[in-house]
Amino acid sequence: MSTSRERMVEAAFALFDEQGYDATTVDQIVDRAGVSRSTFFRAFGAKEDVIFPRHEDLQARIAARLTTGTPQSYRVALREAAGLVLTQYLEEGQLALSRYRLTRTVPALRDREIASMLGYQRLFREHARAWLAELGGPDVDLHAELLAASVVTAHNVVLRRWLRGETDDPWHEFDDAMSSVLTAAPGPQATSGTTVVVLRSGQDLDDVLPALRNALRD
Amino acid sequence: MSTSRERMVEAAFALFDEQGYDATTVDQIVDRAGVSRSTFFRAFGAKEDVIFPRHEDLQARIAARLTTGTPQSYRVALREAAGLVLTQYLEEGQLALSRYRLTRTVPALRDREIASMLGYQRLFREHARAWLAELGGPDVDLHAELLAASVVTAHNVVLRRWLRGETDDPWHEFDDAMSSVLTAAPGPQATSGTTVVVLRSGQDLDDVLPALRNALRD
Repeated sequence: MSTSRERMVEAAFALFDEQGYDATTVDQIVDRAGVSRSTFFRAFGAKEDVIFPRHEDLQARIAARLTTGTPQSYRVALREAAGLVLTQYLEEGQLALSRYRLTRTVPALRDREIASMLGYQRLFREHARAWLAELGGPDVDLHAELLAASVVTAHNVVLRRWLRGETDDPWHEFDDAMSSVLTAAPGPQATSGTTVVVLRSGQDLDDVLPALRNALRD
Repeated sequence: MSTSRERMVEAAFALFDEQGYDATTVDQIVDRAGVSRSTFFRAFGAKEDVIFPRHEDLQARIAARLTTGTPQSYRVALREAAGLVLTQYLEEGQLALSRYRLTRTVPALRDREIASMLGYQRLFREHARAWLAELGGPDVDLHAELLAASVVTAHNVVLRRWLRGETDDPWHEFDDAMSSVLTAAPGPQATSGTTVVVLRSGQDLDDVLPALRNALRD
């Protein structure tokens, strides 16, 4: 962020906190930041764009990270691309917390945030569709949609816990949540030689395990 | 739907098709339907509410179906509650297809549709959270969110294929999609005695199967 851009974002969030989002005008923001109206409108299309000051930059970085994924390594690409969103919120710190307060109380900002998240989800889905199509499994559309929705949902659960002050270790929770989502995803697993066996049987697992171990040692 | 309600919905959709959504006024709708403005505003809060004429009724029926679910049978409740949405669209027929054209071209209606879907998703999530909490597994919040997002996403994939004329058998696809989502869900499976074993091994499944079968017969 350039310095004038930073000053505008800081001024805007300070004013939103002091007097509310709706009561704050662009004129007040530029006055406090010490910049001109034209500087503001070159940097942001409208008042509500200040709330998500790095949205376009983040979207471009997510797209770039996903582009480097392959059908063989796509889980890593999804995990790291989702991690870019979490990184951004954690780096924003207080600004992210202020935005969370605003999006919960101003419907227009809530809609805007949902639209942003759906935009990220669309990126995940389009890349997932290409990877899964190359892997050649069934129901590519369905699985690409489910994968994208699950990755974004898992990210959002962790992010929301951090925003509410419910976790001190968001990265640990993020890793667990992503593993939970990606382990079940279609295609080759990153760890080689994983065999999944589904048995329909009433027998207790512990009773079967010794024989399983023997079978795998053979 | 009462008769005057039906006439207003039909008149509105006919006008939207003929002259576009934005160009159509409530006055034109009530003129064509042969009702008064007050009849319109008693039935619908605003012009955009005509687009989703049975939204509140559907939401109430989803909530009622979910309320009858138990931790033991929750998959059936989720599947049938999602099926209520599909049923409604299929029953609406042409009206649903007209709405699909409108939501793709009018941003305000698109936002409204997203808000509706997120409302259904919230219902699924709240019930899933209660069921999973009672089942006592780990990460109840995460799994409830994932379950709700997956059910709604799977439903939407099938619905969109039907709206686009890409399937003649939406119920068959819906059943497959729901099975795909719900088989992996936490908690007891509807079929008793399913054991899932995950083995980390480079050995081929076929080489292990005879020993597995022997172990289960013991």
